[in-house]
Amino acid sequence: MHNGKARAFTNIALIKYWGKKDQQLILPMNNSLSLTLDAFYTETSVSFSKDYTKDTFYLDGQLQDEKATQKVRHFLDLARNQAGIFKYATVCSQNFVPTAAGLASSASGLAALAGACNNALKLDLSPKELSRLARKGSGSACRSIYGGFVEWEKGNSDQTSFAVPIASNHWEDELAMIFILINDKTKEVPSRNGMQRTVDTSSYYDSWVKSADLDIKKAKDAITKNDFHALGKVTESNCLKMHATTLAASPPFTYWSPGSLKAMNKVQAMRQAGQNCYFTMDAGPNVKVLCRKKEVEDIYHELQKDFPAEQLVIAYAGKGIESLEMEVAK
Amino acid sequence: MHNGKARAFTNIALIKYWGKKDQQLILPMNNSLSLTLDAFYTETSVSFSKDYTKDTFYLDGQLQDEKATQKVRHFLDLARNQAGIFKYATVCSQNFVPTAAGLASSASGLAALAGACNNALKLDLSPKELSRLARKGSGSACRSIYGGFVEWEKGNSDQTSFAVPIASNHWEDELAMIFILINDKTKEVPSRNGMQRTVDTSSYYDSWVKSADLDIKKAKDAITKNDFHALGKVTESNCLKMHATTLAASPPFTYWSPGSLKAMNKVQAMRQAGQNCYFTMDAGPNVKVLCRKKEVEDIYHELQKDFPAEQLVIAYAGKGIESLEMEVAK
Repeated sequence: MHNGKARAFTNIALIKYWGKKDQQLILPMNNSLSLTLDAFYTETSVSFSKDYTKDTFYLDGQLQDEKATQKVRHFLDLARNQAGIFKYATVCSQNFVPTAAGLASSASGLAALAGACNNALKLDLSPKELSRLARKGSGSACRSIYGGFVEWEKGNSDQTSFAVPIASNHWEDELAMIFILINDKTKEVPSRNGMQRTVDTSSYYDSWVKSADLDIKKAKDAITKNDFHALGKVTESNCLKMHATTLAASPPFTYWSPGSLKAMNKVQAMRQAGQNCYFTMDAGPNVKVLCRKKEVEDIYHELQKDFPAEQLVIAYAGKGIESLEMEVAK
Repeated sequence: MHNGKARAFTNIALIKYWGKKDQQLILPMNNSLSLTLDAFYTETSVSFSKDYTKDTFYLDGQLQDEKATQKVRHFLDLARNQAGIFKYATVCSQNFVPTAAGLASSASGLAALAGACNNALKLDLSPKELSRLARKGSGSACRSIYGGFVEWEKGNSDQTSFAVPIASNHWEDELAMIFILINDKTKEVPSRNGMQRTVDTSSYYDSWVKSADLDIKKAKDAITKNDFHALGKVTESNCLKMHATTLAASPPFTYWSPGSLKAMNKVQAMRQAGQNCYFTMDAGPNVKVLCRKKEVEDIYHELQKDFPAEQLVIAYAGKGIESLEMEVAK
């Protein structure tokens, strides 16, 4: 019996990961840059045992079906191959999210699973090696190995594509992110297919990749200088460029809903009224507002005029992956 | 006393005019393609007289201020220079729009003024020459010289940039366009500046120009074949690519409001439910739905479930510019 457990926090990209150059290894087209957050995390334990006759996956206490188990099994295979230990496993994951609004993230989920496997199989991976392993589970999971600001260096091979922490003098502790949960989407866009369709067909995709390289430099420069407005500006601009690529795909699509646009307009109107806030969005309708911790209450209060409290979640900078003691029934 | 009067209909671009390569001459970066519509038009009369001591402009019966008069005066100067007649003028314009929702268009306005000047000053311009003159008043006005489908050939000089009708075998008479008027815009975007800001700063602008050239070919091919779905597809896709360029401008901006997105989502949902309709949008929040005349009632009925009748206007293909008799008080 090999047991291991880990906790990983989710991360939100300020400069987006948007497109793979290798589907199998999950090598991205451009570097991305994220902030790890404390409000959403996953705790996962794994046991490998010769007594098991198949892989089993429990999520939030519920036994998962074949489809959900398949992604986990694929990752377990990677870990088993790396360890040379070929036993079936039972995986128990718990997502800690402030609401049931579907904010569970594959970034925290796959990072926690990577950490649990590392512990259970005594892989003794360095953070860099753990980031590489997590990457192969879900691209953005490689960034959740670290706390604070993190860059995913795209690399050009399995060896050279991994996340690294960005020196920031703990500036991230002065920041906050408010999630505006938008549930008015009339039709769900297939987010996994969306990325690939954009890479394959968008007239603007090549320009996106070039532009993202410049944005990474701007964002790192802003972090070095602790320049909130420079970071906010490039965050918002990079997000809009990412979403613009989907409009030029064939067929075109968008992750935006009317509520997303309402939230984006609100943030821009607040900024024009003198409040310090910038937005970002991922492959879904929710809007995330980057602000300073010292101003988070004012900004939350203003957002509440247009969005009910149950749609708002405040998050602060989170830590990197942590090993946990596994409670094993005697 | 030189008197002239003309009526011109507005047009909606299916392949958008988006960016100038010459500000003064109004030479566009790419060819555009439009449908002239019957529901919105302008009637303008002009009198040049040695008795006038300045240019005067009445719009819908109201004497206009200096700012509104300036654009008209600029155009009158072009016409006076062309005629070699240097007398002040009085211009009376009447916009015929189904609602007061701000749908008056500079395309019909400047085309009608060009036609009125042509008549008053006996310029005896060919349609091509009239199109060139109208272009210098407002770019898209050059397309309102003709009815039905029209292409604006970008050219590379004052001489070579003008609109031409597209042979369609009167297919446009089978089509319709439903305007969905959206008035929920929280903040007005400066639409004239928006185009130039996009040309000057958008990371995606070069790709837009390339892609528009391809779209023109697709649209003309669809018109030749009377292929409604092919025309609708390229119309919607071209519109989304145009709007995507604004998201990659610096600073980024959008003409979309939450209501625009609601309308676009509605059209796509209707299409998935089997209705034949496609949308386009210009530099503002309104959404225009291209459909077939024989299906316009069904589509109108479905749109009415989400948008009140006062927000909906049906238009059909319109005619080219017409000379009118001017009633002169005896």
